[in-house]
Amino acid sequence: MTLHDIVQKSDTIAGRLFDLLVLALIVFSIVTLSVETLPGLSPVAIRWLHISEIVVTGLFTLEYILRIFTTPRKRDYIFSFYGVIDFIAIVPFYLSLGVGLFDVDLRALRMLRLLRIFRTFKVTKYNDASVRFGKALAYAKEEIIIFLFITVMLIYLASVGIYHFEHHAQPDKFQSIPQSLWWALLTLATLGYDGVYPVTLGGKIFTFFILICGLGVVAVPAGIVSAALSKVIRGEDKGKQR
Amino acid sequence: MTLHDIVQKSDTIAGRLFDLLVLALIVFSIVTLSVETLPGLSPVAIRWLHISEIVVTGLFTLEYILRIFTTPRKRDYIFSFYGVIDFIAIVPFYLSLGVGLFDVDLRALRMLRLLRIFRTFKVTKYNDASVRFGKALAYAKEEIIIFLFITVMLIYLASVGIYHFEHHAQPDKFQSIPQSLWWALLTLATLGYDGVYPVTLGGKIFTFFILICGLGVVAVPAGIVSAALSKVIRGEDKGKQR
Amino acid sequence: MTLHDIVQKSDTIAGRLFDLLVLALIVFSIVTLSVETLPGLSPVAIRWLHISEIVVTGLFTLEYILRIFTTPRKRDYIFSFYGVIDFIAIVPFYLSLGVGLFDVDLRALRMLRLLRIFRTFKVTKYNDASVRFGKALAYAKEEIIIFLFITVMLIYLASVGIYHFEHHAQPDKFQSIPQSLWWALLTLATLGYDGVYPVTLGGKIFTFFILICGLGVVAVPAGIVSAALSKVIRGEDKGKQR
Amino acid sequence: MTLHDIVQKSDTIAGRLFDLLVLALIVFSIVTLSVETLPGLSPVAIRWLHISEIVVTGLFTLEYILRIFTTPRKRDYIFSFYGVIDFIAIVPFYLSLGVGLFDVDLRALRMLRLLRIFRTFKVTKYNDASVRFGKALAYAKEEIIIFLFITVMLIYLASVGIYHFEHHAQPDKFQSIPQSLWWALLTLATLGYDGVYPVTLGGKIFTFFILICGLGVVAVPAGIVSAALSKVIRGEDKGKQR
Repeated sequence: MTLHDIVQKSDTIAGRLFDLLVLALIVFSIVTLSVETLPGLSPVAIRWLHISEIVVTGLFTLEYILRIFTTPRKRDYIFSFYGVIDFIAIVPFYLSLGVGLFDVDLRALRMLRLLRIFRTFKVTKYNDASVRFGKALAYAKEEIIIFLFITVMLIYLASVGIYHFEHHAQPDKFQSIPQSLWWALLTLATLGYDGVYPVTLGGKIFTFFILICGLGVVAVPAGIVSAALSKVIRGEDKGKQR
Repeated sequence: MTLHDIVQKSDTIAGRLFDLLVLALIVFSIVTLSVETLPGLSPVAIRWLHISEIVVTGLFTLEYILRIFTTPRKRDYIFSFYGVIDFIAIVPFYLSLGVGLFDVDLRALRMLRLLRIFRTFKVTKYNDASVRFGKALAYAKEEIIIFLFITVMLIYLASVGIYHFEHHAQPDKFQSIPQSLWWALLTLATLGYDGVYPVTLGGKIFTFFILICGLGVVAVPAGIVSAALSKVIRGEDKGKQR
Repeated sequence: MTLHDIVQKSDTIAGRLFDLLVLALIVFSIVTLSVETLPGLSPVAIRWLHISEIVVTGLFTLEYILRIFTTPRKRDYIFSFYGVIDFIAIVPFYLSLGVGLFDVDLRALRMLRLLRIFRTFKVTKYNDASVRFGKALAYAKEEIIIFLFITVMLIYLASVGIYHFEHHAQPDKFQSIPQSLWWALLTLATLGYDGVYPVTLGGKIFTFFILICGLGVVAVPAGIVSAALSKVIRGEDKGKQR
Repeated sequence: MTLHDIVQKSDTIAGRLFDLLVLALIVFSIVTLSVETLPGLSPVAIRWLHISEIVVTGLFTLEYILRIFTTPRKRDYIFSFYGVIDFIAIVPFYLSLGVGLFDVDLRALRMLRLLRIFRTFKVTKYNDASVRFGKALAYAKEEIIIFLFITVMLIYLASVGIYHFEHHAQPDKFQSIPQSLWWALLTLATLGYDGVYPVTLGGKIFTFFILICGLGVVAVPAGIVSAALSKVIRGEDKGKQR
């Protein structure tokens, strides 16, 4: 069993352990990054969080070096999706050391470590379902883009309409189209915008139609995903029958 | 390469460029129309927005003339869906010049330029998915209309019921059926109506049933779209097999 | 063309006209019943509404008598679903005349006229889609009942849980399980209950899981409807192929 | 007809009656447990609730003993899912008698009686639909787990992002990432968090994308359930054809 097998593969106990260790490290790192933002931490807690960050980054750096070392074609890994994510997971720490004077807040960047979790799917029993999901998404990609486009259009049309109907009645609440855009988004997401409702009859009837349309629009992605997944499953079933 | 090919087709570089230019112009025009409504714009900004509007309308007018000029059967284009949209996109500007005295706010009309974007679907790789969508919608048209009808009925019944239960307990909040209709819409859209809830036991139990029904009703369009899309996809697959 | 054909059938012009007239009368009657509840109506308006109610009920009574008269087997009509609805649509008016002293508010009962609209589906081109809908619902009936049962259970468990977690921290907001039930319903319907949120860590984590479950539960009816409609459509397609 | 048939089976009148009696007892017991928490109960009501609790627990204990007695292999029942539930349904009462000094609130545990209701599915006509549901869930299990994972990730990413954008503008409302997590959950569940909205342009645009993603994510379980149910139904249809 070589180092290559431990780092790159997961069909041996050592390889599986390595994967689990990295996964645990990612989760631990994310929790500490979140806890760091809590107000009123004691100096002791802050120090421990700082130390854990140094240790975690050190281990991530070690893992990154190991991965480069054990990959035959270095460039393929470094510029792959996960290679870039692995790099982003460690580089903010070193940058903040180097450019401490500029006080750039790179914490958000460090959060991208979260994306590293996706790698773990590759090595688990969830691989089949992931592949099925991936196929369905790939198949439905164009429908999803069209749907997103229609959604954005609907939100925009809703904002123009509500601005038109309500601007004169509530000039402070529907000041401009950009502001109405925000109202339209929160309303169509059924969140509601801070007690702002149309008051004119026209605005109410318009909101009625927009909400009904919104209901329909929300239904479309479910239909797309369902039809795409059904197609993928049917394809699998046929493949098995032969 | 004639003028006709550039304006009407999109399989040459010039034709594609023309389409992209028009698309960029539409987006630019929509953004400026939105920015125009922002309060507290400086006189300089207002002047620039005005100039950009004149330029944009000029270019749209030019495009409209080109389209008429390059279409063999003028009437077919002028009275087609996109022909009317193209006309509506420019005519409000000239109307506002001519009838400036009447101070009609035609800004909303100008917003219909947005609809011109749909034309761009025809010339892109999203055409297949659009056609599939269109077929599914056409197939499911009657189901959608029945669903809309049932939704409107449910909202109406909800408003009658809640008025019946809550009118005596909260006469100011459930004054009349038309007002309860507004409450029922916002409640079934899960937006919530400004902290107005039933307070009587009957009203609460009624709201319970209405919300459960609403949950089911929201599910129906997803089912319709999904079943219709599945049918269209199955049809395509069978077509390919032969 | 006999009276029977006009009242009972709709494949002649006279029969179709009769159906449309009744439909118009129903819509008109519902609108007036709604307008009646508006506060601050002028005495003139109230009088006109009263007269229109008398006229509408008169016409409905006439229609009811015609329907009984033109049905060969009277009993079948009178005790059918639509027969009962037709009866309920007129009887409250006569009751309110007779027992005016008791001042019973039978307006809500009169609203049941709305249900008469469903009859119109039978005679329109939407019949196919209605039948398909009906078949899908009949097929999915048991799944829907199980789903409703699970939903009610989830709401109940949510209320017990939140009461357990939050009762001590917010005794006024989570006073008892029946009150928490109301909170759980409004929360799972994503309406939100008047700014009442869990404040304890346990309550927050519990709400997190409940909301995720709720998300899944909302998805189930869409899946049921979709699968049932797909089955019905497949059945139709096979029927055509033979 | 032996005691075994009455308790364990439900194809005789006595067996069915026994099942219904137990079901009625469960519902009665849950209602009283809920009513118990109402504030301001009269001493008489409290006494009656206490007596009913003793009677219900007594009957449940009797049923539990009968079930053990009539099962050939005792251990299989006692450690089965329903065996454990049946035990949990009665043991809190005896514990509260024994350890009354410690004043442990075991009411929540007693609520687990609710789970006993699921047993009734086994003996009703809803068995087919339950089995179909169960099969669909089993088939879609991995997809559902992946979906839950993606949902949790999205909520986490949303909280990190909104904290990043809004922390400086609204330090009191977006204090820390754990608190933003709560905001992200309530926002993506479209409940809304007590009038807290992003105020910065970046925060608004970020919320826009997160809400659109959330819309898509909500659609995924519907698609999963629908595709899985369709597969199960297709499998049944094929089974019948042979």
